Amino acid sequence: VRRSQRLTLTSLPDLPLIAKGDDLIEAIMGGLQRERIQLQSGDVLAITQKIISKAEGRAVPLSDVTPSKRSQELARQTGKDARLVELILRESKEVLRVRPGLIIVEHRLGFVCANAGVDFSNVGPEGESEDGVALLLPEDPDATAQRLLDGLIRATGAKVGVLITDSHGRAWREGAVGSSIGMAGLPALVDLRGTPDLFGRLLQTTQIGLADEIAAAASILMGQAGEGCPVVHIRGLPYPLQDGRLRDLIRPREKDLFR
Amino acid sequence: VRRSQRLTLTSLPDLPLIAKGDDLIEAIMGGLQRERIQLQSGDVLAITQKIISKAEGRAVPLSDVTPSKRSQELARQTGKDARLVELILRESKEVLRVRPGLIIVEHRLGFVCANAGVDFSNVGPEGESEDGVALLLPEDPDATAQRLLDGLIRATGAKVGVLITDSHGRAWREGAVGSSIGMAGLPALVDLRGTPDLFGRLLQTTQIGLADEIAAAASILMGQAGEGCPVVHIRGLPYPLQDGRLRDLIRPREKDLFR
Repeated sequence: VRRSQRLTLTSLPDLPLIAKGDDLIEAIMGGLQRERIQLQSGDVLAITQKIISKAEGRAVPLSDVTPSKRSQELARQTGKDARLVELILRESKEVLRVRPGLIIVEHRLGFVCANAGVDFSNVGPEGESEDGVALLLPEDPDATAQRLLDGLIRATGAKVGVLITDSHGRAWREGAVGSSIGMAGLPALVDLRGTPDLFGRLLQTTQIGLADEIAAAASILMGQAGEGCPVVHIRGLPYPLQDGRLRDLIRPREKDLFR
Repeated sequence: VRRSQRLTLTSLPDLPLIAKGDDLIEAIMGGLQRERIQLQSGDVLAITQKIISKAEGRAVPLSDVTPSKRSQELARQTGKDARLVELILRESKEVLRVRPGLIIVEHRLGFVCANAGVDFSNVGPEGESEDGVALLLPEDPDATAQRLLDGLIRATGAKVGVLITDSHGRAWREGAVGSSIGMAGLPALVDLRGTPDLFGRLLQTTQIGLADEIAAAASILMGQAGEGCPVVHIRGLPYPLQDGRLRDLIRPREKDLFR
């Protein structure tokens, strides 16, 4: 008789509002302490990109942006603010599809997503902004995850994993789901090929997108906003924590069937 | 100060091997009892499609299948067995892409997936089969989920949700992730549009694909095989359980940007 496995996700609410330069390790450690969670090796912390972008100063007032001719043209096609389009293009390698309100791109980080993951709002923590503020994705989420991992190991001694999440739409399904955009200390993919199944035959299925499954799971507690509950603690993963990177999840362009 | 939320997933291993006609309610209730889990209203049971397909007799020996001319042609292009291709085509509305070893289709159930979700193996619970056996997806997973839900409510009185999961590849990302192919008693989508965020502004983001996030979370414990741990119990969802259906997740064809 095999033991059942239990996976537990705990949200850390009431973290302080994060602004440029804030110490995320301190905020996360405070949240863990309030929940009386002591980090153990094998645990994972899923962190929404929003607080990382804010801590890294990736908020850009639209009044600072001068749109190019191409941005102005795309703004006409999509009904978006040309300055917002300019930021989307700067964050992208390639524009794949354009529709009203929507620009699907290959992000400079390699994945395909809507509007280059750029968030826009009229109101921010510092109050109303006449032109609005765009929040870009973190500069290098894998590197940030590694820095946070190093800090957490220094603070606790526990070999945890750090996962940076965002919410992505899908090509043929409604509804956005949590997705990973950076990680350190945990595998992006788990390869079960060659593992014998219950009847002794070898599994021939493709790899598991473990980091994305964890991101989706954490996203259930984060909510779409991802700001009220920006960090989720995860315990009980049934896989060893080996080091993975975002690029492991990016399908090479020559294998792309749909672009 | 808001309370943190805790989501707990527990796998139910060591369910009996399921064969055609078996009572899944009995198998699931036995698994819950072994784990000392009493179902409560608000809980969700995620069940891999494999045991449902087996219980519903969706295993087809390839020796029973006569391939059409079109299947033979596609078999040449893909290197697959023409009888397996025949079953894939019968399960599909439309073939979208063809590559060696891979046929991407719109499944008759409406979603886009590889090889129409048809599993193939040379060995099954009844032992070696000379030609191999294909396992098709359940006939109507929403209807099966509803039957299981009705049975669980009769057995326990708890208003739970039932989710039928499979593992799907993604268009631009490596790694398969758990995905929902049928449900009853839980929402496919959660719409947060119009909800005020921390700063009082209204969220403008799209809907959350909650059922798919739950499927991905459950899939972490099921593993890719989905047979060793075919059922996962989930407690602590932060959303009320309203009734959803698979079709809520299917993007209408006129909104498809990539086909």
